[in-house]
Amino acid sequence: MKKHNFNPGPAVLPASVLQEASKAILDYQGTGLSILEISHRGKEFVDIIEEAISLTKELLGLNEDHHVLFTTGGASSQFFMLAQNLLNAGDTAAFADTGTWANKAIKEAKAYGNIKVVNSSKDKNYSYIPKDFSGVPADARFLHVTSNNTIFGTQMQTWPEVAMPLVCDMSSDIFSRPIPIEKFGLIYAGAQKNLGPAGVTMVILRKDMVRTDLTHHMPPMLDYKTFIAENSLYNTPPVFPIYVSMLTLRWIKNLGGLEAMEKINTAKANLLYGEIDANPLFKGTVALEDRSKMNICFVTDNEVLENEFATDAKNAGCINLKGHRSVGGFRASIYNALPIESVQVLVDTMKEFARKKG
Amino acid sequence: MKKHNFNPGPAVLPASVLQEASKAILDYQGTGLSILEISHRGKEFVDIIEEAISLTKELLGLNEDHHVLFTTGGASSQFFMLAQNLLNAGDTAAFADTGTWANKAIKEAKAYGNIKVVNSSKDKNYSYIPKDFSGVPADARFLHVTSNNTIFGTQMQTWPEVAMPLVCDMSSDIFSRPIPIEKFGLIYAGAQKNLGPAGVTMVILRKDMVRTDLTHHMPPMLDYKTFIAENSLYNTPPVFPIYVSMLTLRWIKNLGGLEAMEKINTAKANLLYGEIDANPLFKGTVALEDRSKMNICFVTDNEVLENEFATDAKNAGCINLKGHRSVGGFRASIYNALPIESVQVLVDTMKEFARKKG
Repeated sequence: MKKHNFNPGPAVLPASVLQEASKAILDYQGTGLSILEISHRGKEFVDIIEEAISLTKELLGLNEDHHVLFTTGGASSQFFMLAQNLLNAGDTAAFADTGTWANKAIKEAKAYGNIKVVNSSKDKNYSYIPKDFSGVPADARFLHVTSNNTIFGTQMQTWPEVAMPLVCDMSSDIFSRPIPIEKFGLIYAGAQKNLGPAGVTMVILRKDMVRTDLTHHMPPMLDYKTFIAENSLYNTPPVFPIYVSMLTLRWIKNLGGLEAMEKINTAKANLLYGEIDANPLFKGTVALEDRSKMNICFVTDNEVLENEFATDAKNAGCINLKGHRSVGGFRASIYNALPIESVQVLVDTMKEFARKKG
Repeated sequence: MKKHNFNPGPAVLPASVLQEASKAILDYQGTGLSILEISHRGKEFVDIIEEAISLTKELLGLNEDHHVLFTTGGASSQFFMLAQNLLNAGDTAAFADTGTWANKAIKEAKAYGNIKVVNSSKDKNYSYIPKDFSGVPADARFLHVTSNNTIFGTQMQTWPEVAMPLVCDMSSDIFSRPIPIEKFGLIYAGAQKNLGPAGVTMVILRKDMVRTDLTHHMPPMLDYKTFIAENSLYNTPPVFPIYVSMLTLRWIKNLGGLEAMEKINTAKANLLYGEIDANPLFKGTVALEDRSKMNICFVTDNEVLENEFATDAKNAGCINLKGHRSVGGFRASIYNALPIESVQVLVDTMKEFARKKG
């Protein structure tokens, strides 16, 4: 039975990407070698990583002021790496508190600088995006935001108007829509939601953010300058995760780029939110204007209904819909690669559930 | 044409492992999901990582005193992580200098403790393994060694007799032979030579090495204690590289474990060294008793011969034989998964080359 995979991450990938990756495991482009066996210093892989960088630049509208880096250790490693690379002791940085991951970023940055949390939506269980940035200190080197909050289903639909560059955890909505790139000094994203398989992290760094005056010790593998100098090939990089990410970027480009991707994502989100709002048995958990187009959270009135619908959804092939324990209910992660047909199956199951219960 | 891949890493993997990995990209075990799309918290992946740990313990004869951890960032990240996790400022540790990678480990450790380099084979371009460990300070918390030097083709065939635990970079010969596990406090290895594809690093840590009295700041993603507490699942791990590593460990077990693996590796190495020693046109670069069974370095008398043989080898399908620039000549990396048939093709090409030139 076909599965509709609403996993929050690692998440669904395009079928054509999986086909090509599967073939490359046996023989990469007629080389007689598996993609898993090629040298990271050989022409084949250098072409792959160069294409991944070039597609990223094209899709996001980057220019010669940007570095595109591939690291490992996920966003969880960027939480301390970004602070370690961008701050000296005593430097100030501002952070917005929009949920679990934002909190981890805040906690880790505190070891490296003077961290000011300028707003928070904790008062309403992170069900909205705070929009008051008037408390950002004038001397903050950056403002850190989380563009999409996977757990709570909120997403920034507008960007803060501040004087300093944004540093953004874009793990769960990178490449899902166009962004005003001039606002960002640093963007980072674990691949396993919108970009590729688990095992690689993308870091987009504007050149003016690179610090040559850091006063603390920096091991080469934690220093962005190493990745810049060596084009992410200082050590053996995660070859296969980078390869599959490149294939996914090609797929996005072939669909028409980020404008086209956003249209598709909006259509999917509207379809599901429309049903949530129309269906008497479900309700959304997030402030209307801050609803995520990537992670859609909704609940029922009681546990009996919840369990019954969970069973119906599973029987319809819709899997990994369980909401995070901090929110409860359901969470449909409908990243770039999830087909609208899968959303339609979920919506039909919701309709049928209401009919049955009505 | 079939390729004989003598790549030093990423390296050849068993054909059966590639077949299974290729299928799993399309549908993992009939789940209707790609291995790239499954949750790292779901039963499927938890079973995979548990099996990888259990196979590692069985193959290496580990017991309840050992942790098996999966990290990222390669051995290059372990160079500072091991020092950061095992040393407080002022603590002493001893290091053997057997080449490029040992040097990187030494350099990075110096930021964290009092590092004593107890011996070195730099005087002869690292063509042998120094065996005098009498200079190891009595208060050294560990002695760091590199069991196999990929670039120079040397390998420790005996282990130092010292009072303290060994910390060992085993990236290029882990799982290639049995080891006296009681000597080791920490073993680390990037996967991409004997274990799996690039993108995951194995760390085997004896419990008495874990320090709860570290005085410096430790971000969670750099702290072995995080990986221990969360069974390497604090954040999203590199799912696919761990999966393929598990398949490779199964393959080693099915071959008969490390004793059987060592017999096969010895047969392959003897075949090639036999030809190097018998053939008038080639000579080995390494002291006889320290020759590696993983990376076999050999040279010709002059550049003309070198270029001619490089062409013949390539025409025979033998690829990635170029020696590292620090040694020159040729290097045949004949890790676990390289079939003896590939070594035979190389040997036949060497024989034919001598006949032609004779």
